[in-house]
Amino acid sequence: MQFPSKLIENAVMEVAKLPGIGKKTALRLVLSLLKKDAKETELLSEALLKMRTEIQYCEKCFNISDSNVCSVCSSTRRDASTICVVEDTPDVLAVENTGQYRGLYHVLGGVIAPIEGAGPHDLHIQSLIDRIEKAEEPVREVILALSPTMEGDTTAFYISKKLKGRDLQVSSIARGIPVGGELEYTDEITLGRSILSRRKYQTGS
Amino acid sequence: MQFPSKLIENAVMEVAKLPGIGKKTALRLVLSLLKKDAKETELLSEALLKMRTEIQYCEKCFNISDSNVCSVCSSTRRDASTICVVEDTPDVLAVENTGQYRGLYHVLGGVIAPIEGAGPHDLHIQSLIDRIEKAEEPVREVILALSPTMEGDTTAFYISKKLKGRDLQVSSIARGIPVGGELEYTDEITLGRSILSRRKYQTGS
Repeated sequence: MQFPSKLIENAVMEVAKLPGIGKKTALRLVLSLLKKDAKETELLSEALLKMRTEIQYCEKCFNISDSNVCSVCSSTRRDASTICVVEDTPDVLAVENTGQYRGLYHVLGGVIAPIEGAGPHDLHIQSLIDRIEKAEEPVREVILALSPTMEGDTTAFYISKKLKGRDLQVSSIARGIPVGGELEYTDEITLGRSILSRRKYQTGS
Repeated sequence: MQFPSKLIENAVMEVAKLPGIGKKTALRLVLSLLKKDAKETELLSEALLKMRTEIQYCEKCFNISDSNVCSVCSSTRRDASTICVVEDTPDVLAVENTGQYRGLYHVLGGVIAPIEGAGPHDLHIQSLIDRIEKAEEPVREVILALSPTMEGDTTAFYISKKLKGRDLQVSSIARGIPVGGELEYTDEITLGRSILSRRKYQTGS
């Protein structure tokens, strides 16, 4: 692809480094900025730069935060006896958006993936243990909300072993057929597990 | 959607202003910057800002340019007797990428669209006429490469009327069935026009 200007080319190349953005899309985005006031591009550039340079990680749960302790960890309205362990920030957002969870979080920063060279010590697992041991209010439950992949399962298994023998419950989010999903199109592993994990049918709830 | 941080929220809101980027995609893009070195975000911000503030428009063809005359207009290897009239910069890129055109361009900056309040005087049409009149090397052909829409056709008709009576040929890019397109799935207007605009079959070319 030829560009009419080095300035455009540089901008396109930088935008195309973002995941899922090809050169054509990048060009469309860059040219769209030209149609708008220069102020808009300023706002965009500044927001990105400010975000990247000023963002912090919560020293308790390791989620991204505007201060050294995040808004969830510092809230008095959250249930500090429950910790939900997730892989990364988008997972926190996903759980928060359900509106079903009032406890705290612990962001691992990844999963155990030996092929990519990511072991348990690259993740915030020891800090989870420390946090549980030093907690003012005793932690009664740790919910493992990891993706049902090989790496996610390995990580969940590792953490559950580490937490063994402590006076707390370790649970895992339910796996089964998604709401709105059709039985006949569900893969056999999911369907098989959902039969094994069947629950007593509850009426009127 | 709730955000764990104001910094993230601001960045997501700015990115989501770009065309075709929703909040979920914007969040994914913003978080991807956190996985990379801060230098990457700096490069991106700077490239966008520099592009937006330093970009110029060629004073001859009105395409975007790094200087006051663009690389095409200032090239001695281009055929200055032919001008290809297009709506906007991406169209110049599209024609350039075919490798089939060696003439100059003229970027209108839009099409005549009365509904959106865009009349002929909002476009670089008068400057096209001036350019043809003052050209050192006489312009022999003006190729109208506008989209085959109502607005594109109106604009082409307007320009062709303006150029009437001058010693130059006004042509329009061919419309017909796209290469690789299937006859049976072509809409009737395109197929009808392609029959009307049929050409003598050429062998060996």
